[in-house]
Amino acid sequence: MSIVEQKAKEMGISIPKPPSPVAAYVPGVKVGEFIYTSGQLPIVDGEIKYKGKVDTGISLEEAYEAAKICALNCLGVVKSMVGDLDKIEQVVKLVGFVNSSPEFTMQPKVINGASELIVMLLGDKGLHARSAVGVNSLPLDAVCEVEMIVKLKE
Amino acid sequence: MSIVEQKAKEMGISIPKPPSPVAAYVPGVKVGEFIYTSGQLPIVDGEIKYKGKVDTGISLEEAYEAAKICALNCLGVVKSMVGDLDKIEQVVKLVGFVNSSPEFTMQPKVINGASELIVMLLGDKGLHARSAVGVNSLPLDAVCEVEMIVKLKE
Amino acid sequence: MSIVEQKAKEMGISIPKPPSPVAAYVPGVKVGEFIYTSGQLPIVDGEIKYKGKVDTGISLEEAYEAAKICALNCLGVVKSMVGDLDKIEQVVKLVGFVNSSPEFTMQPKVINGASELIVMLLGDKGLHARSAVGVNSLPLDAVCEVEMIVKLKE
Repeated sequence: MSIVEQKAKEMGISIPKPPSPVAAYVPGVKVGEFIYTSGQLPIVDGEIKYKGKVDTGISLEEAYEAAKICALNCLGVVKSMVGDLDKIEQVVKLVGFVNSSPEFTMQPKVINGASELIVMLLGDKGLHARSAVGVNSLPLDAVCEVEMIVKLKE
Repeated sequence: MSIVEQKAKEMGISIPKPPSPVAAYVPGVKVGEFIYTSGQLPIVDGEIKYKGKVDTGISLEEAYEAAKICALNCLGVVKSMVGDLDKIEQVVKLVGFVNSSPEFTMQPKVINGASELIVMLLGDKGLHARSAVGVNSLPLDAVCEVEMIVKLKE
Repeated sequence: MSIVEQKAKEMGISIPKPPSPVAAYVPGVKVGEFIYTSGQLPIVDGEIKYKGKVDTGISLEEAYEAAKICALNCLGVVKSMVGDLDKIEQVVKLVGFVNSSPEFTMQPKVINGASELIVMLLGDKGLHARSAVGVNSLPLDAVCEVEMIVKLKE
C-alpha cells in the first residue's frame, strides 16, 4: 500500500474508483508528467451525495464534506491512471466551483474541504494553487465540482 | 487536405477561421508543444448564433448546437496557429461554461455538443478531460463558452 | 529594478506583495518553467477594494479597475516566487470570473482591465489566451477574480 493510501486509511478514508464520466469524455488525461482530471462531482457509489445550493439548500458544513468527496474522486482518477498515488510529485492546481445562492461569499471555506484533505494526505506535495468561485448551477445539481492538475515524478 | 478536415468535410462541416477576440487578448498561445485557446463563443460569421440561458431562453438542443460551434472555433484557433489539425497529438482539456437558469442541471448534455464533435473528428486523439459548469451570464449573452488545451505532435 | 517594474513605475503603479491566500492553499505553484497562480481578488492592503455585482452594485468602470488590481496581484505572486518579472517569457493564459447580475454580458470589457494592463507592462510577452465568464457570486463578494499561467525564461 502506498504511503498516501496508508495515511488515508489511518484517517478512515479510502481512495475511490473514479466515477464514470457523465458524458462524452474521459476521467483524466496524462500528457508528459502531468495529469489533468475532469471536473469531479461529490459522487459516492454512483450517486451525488450532496445536492443543492449553499446557503439555501445546503449548509457550509455539508458543502465542505462535498468538496472532500470531489477531491477524493480526483485522487481516484489519478490512481486509476498511474496505479499509485506516491507517484505524485506535486498537486499543481485545483479549481473549485461552488453551487451558490447569489449572496453566498464563502466559497473558499467550502473548497477548503478539498484543499485541506489533499494537504493532510500529501503534505508539501499537496500544496497547490487554487481558484474557488461561485456558480448558479452545476451538473446533476451537485453542490460543488473540483478539477485538478497533478505533476508526476519523472 | 488534412485527415481531420477530410472527416469534417464528410460530416458536412468546415473548420472556420477563428473569430476575432472580443477584447485585448489573442485567440490562442503556443508554449512548447501545447496550445491554450481563449474561450470561444458560438460565433458564426462574426455574430453570436445562440444567445440566452438554457431552460428559459433556449432549448437543450439549441445549446448543444452552440457547444459544437464553440468547439469548431477552438479547432479554428488551432488551425490558424499551426496550419494543419493533423498536428494534434491529443486534446488534453476542455472547459465548458453554460449560460444557465439556476434550475438547469444538464450542463454535461450541452457540452457534449463540443466533446462528441471533437471525438468524431479526431478519434482517440480527441478524448479529453473536461469540466462543465453552469454560470449566470456570459459575454455577449452567448449560450456557452468553451476553452481548450491541445498537445501537438513533436 | 526590472524593466517591467520600471515601466510600472512610469505608469504610477507598483507591483504589490501578493495577498495571503484566504484559505488552505499557496499563492502560486512553479512546475518546470511554468507558474500557476491562485485566483486573485481585488485586494489592496489586505482588504477587498471592489465588492458587489457588476450592473447592480458596481459600475463597469469600477469593475475594470478591480480587474487591474487582480492582475497586479497575479504579477505580485510571480514576483514573490521568482524575484524579477523580467524572467517572464510569456503570459500564457488568464481566466477572469466576473461577479455579475444575470443580465450583465460585458465580462470581456471588465477583464480588459487585467489584459490591457498586462500588455502595457509586458508588451508582446503579455499577449495571452483568455476566458472571461460571469458568475453569480465570488469569495468575499469580490467583483472579480483572475488567475494566470505564466511561462518563465529557461
